[in-house]
Amino acid sequence: MLTTDFLTQLQSLLPSERLYTDPVDCYAYAYDNSQKIYPPDVVAFPLTSEEVQAIVVLCNIHKVPLTPRGRGTGTVGGSLPEQGGVALSLERMLQIIVVDPANRVIVAEPGVLNQTVQNSAKLHGFFWPPDPTSAAYSSIGGNLATSAGGPHAVKYGTTRDHVLGMKAVTGKGEAIKTGCYTTKGVVGYDLTRLLIGSEGTLAVITEATLKLTPLPQAIGGITAHFQDAASCAAAVVSIMSLSQIPSALEFLDKGSLNLIRGRFPDMLPADTGAMLMIEVDGSPREIIDSSTAILSACRNEGLLQAEQVSDATNLWRMRKALSPLLRDIAPNKINEDIVVPVATLPELLKGLSQLSSKYQIINVNFGHAGNGNIHVNLLVNQDNIDEMARAEKCLNEVFELVIRLNGTLSGEHGIGREKRAYVDKEIDATTLALMKDIKQVFDPNNILNPGKLFL
Amino acid sequence: MLTTDFLTQLQSLLPSERLYTDPVDCYAYAYDNSQKIYPPDVVAFPLTSEEVQAIVVLCNIHKVPLTPRGRGTGTVGGSLPEQGGVALSLERMLQIIVVDPANRVIVAEPGVLNQTVQNSAKLHGFFWPPDPTSAAYSSIGGNLATSAGGPHAVKYGTTRDHVLGMKAVTGKGEAIKTGCYTTKGVVGYDLTRLLIGSEGTLAVITEATLKLTPLPQAIGGITAHFQDAASCAAAVVSIMSLSQIPSALEFLDKGSLNLIRGRFPDMLPADTGAMLMIEVDGSPREIIDSSTAILSACRNEGLLQAEQVSDATNLWRMRKALSPLLRDIAPNKINEDIVVPVATLPELLKGLSQLSSKYQIINVNFGHAGNGNIHVNLLVNQDNIDEMARAEKCLNEVFELVIRLNGTLSGEHGIGREKRAYVDKEIDATTLALMKDIKQVFDPNNILNPGKLFL
Repeated sequence: MLTTDFLTQLQSLLPSERLYTDPVDCYAYAYDNSQKIYPPDVVAFPLTSEEVQAIVVLCNIHKVPLTPRGRGTGTVGGSLPEQGGVALSLERMLQIIVVDPANRVIVAEPGVLNQTVQNSAKLHGFFWPPDPTSAAYSSIGGNLATSAGGPHAVKYGTTRDHVLGMKAVTGKGEAIKTGCYTTKGVVGYDLTRLLIGSEGTLAVITEATLKLTPLPQAIGGITAHFQDAASCAAAVVSIMSLSQIPSALEFLDKGSLNLIRGRFPDMLPADTGAMLMIEVDGSPREIIDSSTAILSACRNEGLLQAEQVSDATNLWRMRKALSPLLRDIAPNKINEDIVVPVATLPELLKGLSQLSSKYQIINVNFGHAGNGNIHVNLLVNQDNIDEMARAEKCLNEVFELVIRLNGTLSGEHGIGREKRAYVDKEIDATTLALMKDIKQVFDPNNILNPGKLFL
Repeated sequence: MLTTDFLTQLQSLLPSERLYTDPVDCYAYAYDNSQKIYPPDVVAFPLTSEEVQAIVVLCNIHKVPLTPRGRGTGTVGGSLPEQGGVALSLERMLQIIVVDPANRVIVAEPGVLNQTVQNSAKLHGFFWPPDPTSAAYSSIGGNLATSAGGPHAVKYGTTRDHVLGMKAVTGKGEAIKTGCYTTKGVVGYDLTRLLIGSEGTLAVITEATLKLTPLPQAIGGITAHFQDAASCAAAVVSIMSLSQIPSALEFLDKGSLNLIRGRFPDMLPADTGAMLMIEVDGSPREIIDSSTAILSACRNEGLLQAEQVSDATNLWRMRKALSPLLRDIAPNKINEDIVVPVATLPELLKGLSQLSSKYQIINVNFGHAGNGNIHVNLLVNQDNIDEMARAEKCLNEVFELVIRLNGTLSGEHGIGREKRAYVDKEIDATTLALMKDIKQVFDPNNILNPGKLFL
C-alpha cells in the first residue's frame, strides 16, 4: 500500500491526466501476454527523461516498487507490477527525435512503436532489422528491454546488434548515457548491451539510438512441405550450411499445421507433416541464386514439395494465423521459446515428441528454425490439476533437453517472472550472483521491477 | 615489490618454465605498440582456466596488480603492467577447443591467434569477421578485450557482434560463464558484451565462443583517386548512402600518400590528393552490381580516376605499407582512432587540416572511412618539448571536434592508459561513476589492470 505522503509527492510530479490511481484505470496495466494479473497501485505516464528520473528518485525515497512498461506485449510477465507500486508506462514518450538517413540512424523515445520506426526508416530506404511479430503494437523500449528478435534475426541478428546507444535512468535514479552515435566505439564499458535484454531491472530506457540497415531490393519466398519433422529438421540443417543466408526460416510442426487445417481446411496439402516458410532477400539475381540453393538443400527423401511463392508477403499468412488459433484452442497454453544449436534441431524435435507422449501433453512447435529458436507450446487447460502437474514435469524435461543440447532457455521472450525458476538450470550460481551484484549497483534499493529475472 | 611469501606461493602454482622472474625475461612483457615501457615483476603463463583462477585468487590475497596480456599488439597501453606486479600472459593458452561448422561456431582459448581462427574457419567455408591489421600475430583474447574491429567492420560489424559467449575469471577470482552457444539468447544480463572491450579490467577471458560467417564467394576491389580530401570525403558519404555496403572502405589522405610516394615513387599518380581503397564481396554478379553503384557514387568534380582492380588482394598493398612507414618517419607519433558519423567526415577532415596548420603539427590521416573511423596520426618528435606541447593542445582540439561532431574517441584501439585523461570529454561523470561501480563488483580489490580505462 502506498502512503499518502508518497502519493501526494507523485501527484506533484505529474498532472492528473498522466497519473492513474483509480483501480479501474490501473487494471489495464495489470497484465501482459503472459495472462497473469498483478494490478499496480498507480500508473504514471512520464513524457520526459526528467520526469522519469523524478519518479525513480521518489520511489527510492519511499522504497516503492516501480515496473517500467512498454505496450505490455511481452509473454513472460516482465512488465507485470508483481509487487504492486508504480507501473511506469512509457507509452506516451512518442517522439522520434532524430531521423538521420545520411548516418543511418533514428533516435527514438521508448514509447515509439516498432512499426512507426519502420515507417520512418522506409521513407529513406532503410529498415530496423528487429521485427517481433507484435511490431504493429509493441514499443521500441519494450523491444530493447527484452532484446526481442523476430524472424529476420537469422540473417540480420537480434536487437543488441542494432542499437548504438541510449539514454536511461538507473534504478538509483541517475540519468546515464550509453554507447555512441557511430557504428564503432569502444570507450568505456558496453552499458548499451548490458541494458538490452535486462527487462527493466537495471534502468528505464528513455531514448534509443537505432542503427538502420538498407532495405533489400526485393524479397522472395519459398515454401517447403515435408512428410515429417525429422526430414524437415534435416533440411533446416542443410539450408543453414549454405553460404546464402535466408532472411527468415520458419518452421511449423504437425501440431501447428493441424491447428491451421482446423480453421482453413484448404490451405494445406493433407500429407504435409511439417513445413518451412523461407524468405530470401537481396537483388533479384541474388534471390534467384539463393532460392536455387535453398530449394536444392530442401531435397531429401522426406520432401513432398518445395516451390517459390510469387507473392512473398503472402508467405506469412499461415504463420500469422497460428498464434490466435493457439490462443483459441488453449487460452492458457504454456509458451516457451527455447533455442538449440541448429544442427541439433532434429534431436530437439525428436525429444519434444517423446516428451509429449511420455507426459500425454499435446504440444505445438514452430518458430525461427534458422536460429534454432523454437516456440514450444504445451496446450494445457490450467483448470486440469493433473494435466498441469504433468505439464510442469514435461517442461522441466524440455528445459533439461535444451541445456543438454547446449541451448538456451529463451531466444527472445526473456525470463520475466515465468521462467525465473529455471534460470539456474542455465546460469551457474557464481555467474548469477555476479548478475545480482550488478543489479545492486544499478538499483541498490531493489525498486526497479523487483523479483524479475531471478529469484 | 612482491613479497617472498607471494612469490613462493606463485611458484607453487606454476612450473618454473611458465613463470618468469628474471628482469631480463620480464622485459619483453614491459611494452606494447604504445611504445611505453612498464616492466612487470613477474610474468605468469597459465595453461588452464583453473590456473588463471588460482593466480587471480593469490593476487587478491596479496593485493598484487595483475595485468592480462595477449600478444601485446595494442596501441594504447592496455596490456602494460603500469603498476608492476604480475603480467598474465595468455599466449600459451593455444587450444582450439571446438570447430563446429554445422553450427558455425569455433571455441578457442585466448592465446589462439586471430589468423589461426581464420585458417580453421576457412577450411569449412567460413571466416570470423573481425580482422585487425595485426591478425597474423594478435590473439583472440586481446581482440575481445579491446573489441578490435578492422576494415571489414563497415559491412560485418565489430567484435561484439561476433561472439556468442565466453568463460572468464573475474578480478575477484571467480570463474564465470557468459552468453550461450546459439545465435539467439536472452537469459540474464549480457555479460559477454560487458567484457568485450573492457580491456582486461573486469575479468580474464579464458575461452571464447566465436560466431562464424560464410566466406563470400568472391572479392572485388576498386581504387578511387581524388584531387583533395574534401571530394574524397564527399564520395565516402555518397557510397555509404547506397544500399550496397562495401566490405571495406579505406581512406588515405595526402599525408599518407606522400609517405608512400617517398618510399615507392611509382606507386601513385602525382596529382592524387586523397584516395579510397574499396572492397566489395559476394557473388560475382553482386560484385558487378556493387562496383557499378560504387564507381558511380565516386563521381564528383574532384574525382581523378576510379577503377576496378583485377587482383583484390593487391588492393591492400599500399595500406599495409603505410604503418611501418609512419613508424619509420615518426617512431613516437601520436596515433588516435577517433570516429565520427559518416556524413560529418568532410567536416572532420577540414577541421583536422585547420588544426594541423594552427598548431604546426604534421598529421597523417587514414582508415576505416565507411565507419567514420579515422586513424589520426600526429607526427611528432617526443624530444622536441615545444612540438609536444603544441601536439597536446592540438590533440585536445581534435577530441573536442570529434565530440562536437557527435563522434567517439576510439573506434577500436580502446582507452588503455593513453586516452584515459580524455574519457570524461565523452562520458559524463554519472555514467563514469556507474562504470567504476561495475568495475568494483568484478574486481573489489582493484587488482585487475589497475588504473586503466579511467583515472
